[in-house]
Amino acid sequence: MDSDNNLIFNKLKSQLEWAWEKSPFYREKWEKAGISPDTLKTLSDLSKFPVITKEDLRLSQKLHPPYGDYLCVPKKEVIRIHGTSGTTGTPTIFGISKEDWEKIGEAHARIMSAAGIRPSDTIFIGSPFSLYMGSWGVLKGAEHLGATVLPFGAGISGQTAIAVDLINRLKPTCFYGTPSYALRIAEVAQEKGMNPRDFGFRVMFFSGEPGAGIPSTKKKIRDIFGSSCIDMGSMAEMTPWMTNAECQEENGMHLWQDIVYTEVCDPQTFKPVPYGKEGTPIYTHLERKSQPMIRLLSGDLTYWDNAPCPCGRNYPRLPKGIYGRIDNIVVIRGHNINPAIIEDVIRSIPTIKEFRIIISRERETDEYTVEVEATKEIKDNLSKRLIEAIGLRPKIKIVKDGTLPRTEFKAKRVIDNRV
Amino acid sequence: MDSDNNLIFNKLKSQLEWAWEKSPFYREKWEKAGISPDTLKTLSDLSKFPVITKEDLRLSQKLHPPYGDYLCVPKKEVIRIHGTSGTTGTPTIFGISKEDWEKIGEAHARIMSAAGIRPSDTIFIGSPFSLYMGSWGVLKGAEHLGATVLPFGAGISGQTAIAVDLINRLKPTCFYGTPSYALRIAEVAQEKGMNPRDFGFRVMFFSGEPGAGIPSTKKKIRDIFGSSCIDMGSMAEMTPWMTNAECQEENGMHLWQDIVYTEVCDPQTFKPVPYGKEGTPIYTHLERKSQPMIRLLSGDLTYWDNAPCPCGRNYPRLPKGIYGRIDNIVVIRGHNINPAIIEDVIRSIPTIKEFRIIISRERETDEYTVEVEATKEIKDNLSKRLIEAIGLRPKIKIVKDGTLPRTEFKAKRVIDNRV
Repeated sequence: MDSDNNLIFNKLKSQLEWAWEKSPFYREKWEKAGISPDTLKTLSDLSKFPVITKEDLRLSQKLHPPYGDYLCVPKKEVIRIHGTSGTTGTPTIFGISKEDWEKIGEAHARIMSAAGIRPSDTIFIGSPFSLYMGSWGVLKGAEHLGATVLPFGAGISGQTAIAVDLINRLKPTCFYGTPSYALRIAEVAQEKGMNPRDFGFRVMFFSGEPGAGIPSTKKKIRDIFGSSCIDMGSMAEMTPWMTNAECQEENGMHLWQDIVYTEVCDPQTFKPVPYGKEGTPIYTHLERKSQPMIRLLSGDLTYWDNAPCPCGRNYPRLPKGIYGRIDNIVVIRGHNINPAIIEDVIRSIPTIKEFRIIISRERETDEYTVEVEATKEIKDNLSKRLIEAIGLRPKIKIVKDGTLPRTEFKAKRVIDNRV
Repeated sequence: MDSDNNLIFNKLKSQLEWAWEKSPFYREKWEKAGISPDTLKTLSDLSKFPVITKEDLRLSQKLHPPYGDYLCVPKKEVIRIHGTSGTTGTPTIFGISKEDWEKIGEAHARIMSAAGIRPSDTIFIGSPFSLYMGSWGVLKGAEHLGATVLPFGAGISGQTAIAVDLINRLKPTCFYGTPSYALRIAEVAQEKGMNPRDFGFRVMFFSGEPGAGIPSTKKKIRDIFGSSCIDMGSMAEMTPWMTNAECQEENGMHLWQDIVYTEVCDPQTFKPVPYGKEGTPIYTHLERKSQPMIRLLSGDLTYWDNAPCPCGRNYPRLPKGIYGRIDNIVVIRGHNINPAIIEDVIRSIPTIKEFRIIISRERETDEYTVEVEATKEIKDNLSKRLIEAIGLRPKIKIVKDGTLPRTEFKAKRVIDNRV
């Protein structure tokens, strides 16, 4: 473990020096905190560095468009542009250099190999190819691994039936997507009289939703498809986002500390909590030139452990995956939704008297219902505005005036029935 | 031109020999016709080879799943799987080897360069990333060219507003998509009070629809965006599909004869027509190992010319692009739709007495309306079945019994009001 730590320490040191040299964003933050890369004498000194938040990144991009002053390569070296889905506000832009893109492919190939994927495999990629990083990371990793890809995508209306027929015909051996989408595919297959086990998936791996780390969902996917169910994923900003990933043992995501160094921290002090304790992951890139993240606060909730894994890897693990948020962001179908944005939209229609948001899970898919005290004429307008604002179609229920709960202090207008 | 012809002849000869050696599909067809690669003494001997049709490919894949017996590399060398969108029946599967994939990238980089795209450009890719080859060909070409890509995709509900904001913020210099989608983006931008000229697109290039070759649409796109409007595209089976492509002069698509050798032929005899005459393109790969197409009948309608182009390239050209079909396939929003499939779906609902399909162009987008003599209860069911069958949402109009035209002989149930 000492030589591992040396390796990680040296990569971390170089990464901090790179950010310090190239990025006013980090240099100003660190100078203000009275620290510099020299502060790092041991790995544990990393916790002396300030955390950064998504809000910091957004502000930096506003002041220094389009990539922010944490872009550490010349703009012309950016060869790919992606971004957040923009569901919690203005999308944050990811500018990725060619060198980083290749390293992302290498990292994902390593991790996919640990999930049991081999060059002889064919991977059905069932997540949208757009700003979203998930599907692109899998594609790049598969290319580096030498596996065959079937980059089908997702999210285009009417495609699921085609997906089912294609899977049945081509029998890809691996599946990537969200747990919700895998279960939706199973449902459509069953409606067509097929048994999802006959697809012959051997490895199914997931990100974008916590499902694959939730025991009941994991069991369901394994049972329905007769395959493995591998949980993966950190944050799009942290791409290679697969550095939280289960191995074939499926007993919690390993933290691949030599690619992205992760501390599970106290949500107030941002100091690492001991193994066995709960906290929020704070991520630090170790091999990123273009937009390195140094101590990015995830806001997610998990606990970590360092009990040995039968696979032999000595990375720490998140035995229960990521199972919550330290703030009030709700995750609907893999999108981080800030209820404040929904409220903002609803409040923009003045005839709505009161409202409530009910999040539920129906037929394996997240649904959100907006109950409003208003006349039914507003229905189409509200639906359209909500789709524009957060990209997800709501169910809208008109209720009688005065039937929704009122409060004198803090309202609870978001009811999450999935928990 | 002689040395050009020598180069093309030698590539063609090797391609025919490859197909003959590796593919029972071609060998059987050619033996039956009493020919072999030795038949090719000059370029014009190619017209002695039988044409192949999409139906031949479909049948071959049915008998020899999944790639057909025209796959000329071992299955394990296939690294990417794509396909037709399946709108004219069962999707045809494309299995592409690594070597071919790299050559496709090189070909597209050359052609995109002729369209004026440079490594310093940023390309917004606004077509779906799924089975569809268009967007993937652009992405691969851009990677080989060294340009920056913003692979946004298309087709996911609610995305256009995000696309407009992102284009406005990042100011990509090039746009790829369908002409319809570019005009839709302009419309949404104008609704938001933006002027599409302020986006600063310099090169806009298109495939998937004939629009960019239609003078009125070309003029409209140039005027609205203040950019070029470059027409491109042959068929997905022919990838690198950009081998029909305009240069910066924008006076008709060049046939890049040293990559894909194209003959514009009489639709009955399949012999080349003289320059200046109308016919249907028949395409032959010159550098494809995995699934080479030798004389694939497009069924499209065009005329070709060999008048010199100011750009200096001596390829023949399609001065008016591709402007029709020799059969009855209709192209709606870039999808090849066989009306027989629509009829099949409608006929599967026995309470429908008569029907008619009206294709129109509304707000720059193709629409199809199905008029049915039936009760309105069938509406949802019919809509759902049509989306499943052809992937496009219909408008459905219920009309009174007996109001639609009847015929004693050949019905004209497809009315295309766009012509």
